[in-house]
Amino acid sequence: MRIVLDAMGSDTCPEPELEAAVEAARLFGDEIILVGPIESLKPRLQTLGASTVSVRLVDATETITMKDKGLAMALKAKRRNSKTSMAVGIDLLKSGEADAFVTAGNTGGAWATAFFRLGTIPGVERAPLAATFPVKDGYCIVLDIGANPDCKPEHLLQFAIMGSIYANKARQIDKPRVAILSNGEEAGKGNELVRNTYPLLESSGLNFIGNVEGKELFSGEADVVVTDGFTGNILLKSTEAVAKLIMDILRQQLKSNLISMLGGSLAKPSLVKIRAMLNPDEYGAAPLLGLNGLVFIGHGRSNAHALVSAIKATRASVEANVLGSIRTAIQESLMKSTIKEIE
Amino acid sequence: MRIVLDAMGSDTCPEPELEAAVEAARLFGDEIILVGPIESLKPRLQTLGASTVSVRLVDATETITMKDKGLAMALKAKRRNSKTSMAVGIDLLKSGEADAFVTAGNTGGAWATAFFRLGTIPGVERAPLAATFPVKDGYCIVLDIGANPDCKPEHLLQFAIMGSIYANKARQIDKPRVAILSNGEEAGKGNELVRNTYPLLESSGLNFIGNVEGKELFSGEADVVVTDGFTGNILLKSTEAVAKLIMDILRQQLKSNLISMLGGSLAKPSLVKIRAMLNPDEYGAAPLLGLNGLVFIGHGRSNAHALVSAIKATRASVEANVLGSIRTAIQESLMKSTIKEIE
Repeated sequence: MRIVLDAMGSDTCPEPELEAAVEAARLFGDEIILVGPIESLKPRLQTLGASTVSVRLVDATETITMKDKGLAMALKAKRRNSKTSMAVGIDLLKSGEADAFVTAGNTGGAWATAFFRLGTIPGVERAPLAATFPVKDGYCIVLDIGANPDCKPEHLLQFAIMGSIYANKARQIDKPRVAILSNGEEAGKGNELVRNTYPLLESSGLNFIGNVEGKELFSGEADVVVTDGFTGNILLKSTEAVAKLIMDILRQQLKSNLISMLGGSLAKPSLVKIRAMLNPDEYGAAPLLGLNGLVFIGHGRSNAHALVSAIKATRASVEANVLGSIRTAIQESLMKSTIKEIE
Repeated sequence: MRIVLDAMGSDTCPEPELEAAVEAARLFGDEIILVGPIESLKPRLQTLGASTVSVRLVDATETITMKDKGLAMALKAKRRNSKTSMAVGIDLLKSGEADAFVTAGNTGGAWATAFFRLGTIPGVERAPLAATFPVKDGYCIVLDIGANPDCKPEHLLQFAIMGSIYANKARQIDKPRVAILSNGEEAGKGNELVRNTYPLLESSGLNFIGNVEGKELFSGEADVVVTDGFTGNILLKSTEAVAKLIMDILRQQLKSNLISMLGGSLAKPSLVKIRAMLNPDEYGAAPLLGLNGLVFIGHGRSNAHALVSAIKATRASVEANVLGSIRTAIQESLMKSTIKEIE
């Protein structure tokens, strides 16, 4: 397997990427292709003893940083001869030289670069961003969490198909429970988009369990939750913000009371467990689905360990042929709806 | 002042309501009109020494419970001769016999009853539910949080006007900072609704500060945040769910570690402060705005103390003439947009 790792993604890049590349190559026996400014990467890589494992450097002189956004970023992402590490790395997927691309960089930048350079799978109209939310006793995959603010029912149906395949193939969940995010559990609740998507999901052949609200989502009643990119982004950002606010209050209180008396050791397990909720993707990577290539985005704060986890998650999707399964399922779904129209 | 209190609202009704009525009448010198089944309420009220204060009972033989929903609830709310405590109480506003109505009952039921029986203020197309979110060092009023899942830009403009008046008059916030909930801070970000609402808010004469995401909302950068009822409801329910999930983990961990060693006293301030976040309206009441009458909804878990707080919040709105100010502001806004069209 050949996995491309963006050397210039994480907040403290390229150190975590260099370490992770060597470690992942050693651990999984894959070829790791590290993309970034070769001149500065090469000497650092040598000090890590990379000569014994399969880490290859590919040159990319520019980067998309966390500050890039808007039209300027879109141009960087789209330009034919773009020299950003994301563009060069993703082009390796397009040319068939690699099987998947992993970055801990700018989410919007990775989405735009992948969208413009790989294009969507035939029949797929919108490529969603999927995030893994930690919920009671497990995880829930939510998509779209920001790439497509305005969606149609047909888009949400495709998100459900892609999310379900991802949950099944890459996460080994048998018959993933698929739900749609709504403002009430009962069928019939929802805005126009939700009400019109409901019947499509009901007749999709997926394991559709109906509407869920925040309560059901975070209590773990669904494996995959679909929503438009606007609502999904509000969900992601506001729950992160509330979690952070609670943690801040807690940390402040613990500092003034308990920790000073007891040392941090007793309170630490609580904080660590809760901190994982702040960064849904800290211990893995979020896939971009619906594109002609596998692209995974890890958290900006990723260290080497988190990047190795991200590569591990990515490998699982390559091995399970997530891409091929999505292609087939989308074709089947389109065929089904065409037959329905003819009838 | 004459305030109607629904005797059959809270989860443990009517005890908290009976206590609160007597206490509020004593504390504020108002007439509290308690609406519910008079036969069972009367003897209980007498044991509370209500004879010395101004608490009046009005008979209502039926109730809208927390389980009522859908069409059956709408019919209960709408029926001309409805005998629910909400319908009878709200009819007292309509006939001019009272100044405001407070309930800790079913939010949807209260909204529907008030909407059907009072009607909207002339020119107002949608009546939003407003919730008060606890944020860093203060509060933020968010509307609509569920009454109107599908909204147009003109509706959100009216929500902004009403929310701003409420924040100013009832909460004494000078020039409330008004924002719109979006999936990005920059102007131009958002779904179609947000992008089309933005220019209306910009030229509204309100203190419009632009888009906010969850991060800015919970760090207290806005006093009033407008959104459609679908997104607002997702925001409310999902942040409540995350807060509850964190609290559950915390409580579990504290139980097994710290509390058993230290007694609960040291950890309690953290928990109490955070618990307030779970129930934004526990210490007040959420107004229904845009209707021909002042209606406030307290939390279902309200005890007598919380209900007295809800009555206090309601009094403030009556005293500040929130209703009259909204009527005037809506007329002015409509006149402004008519003039614009003529020009």
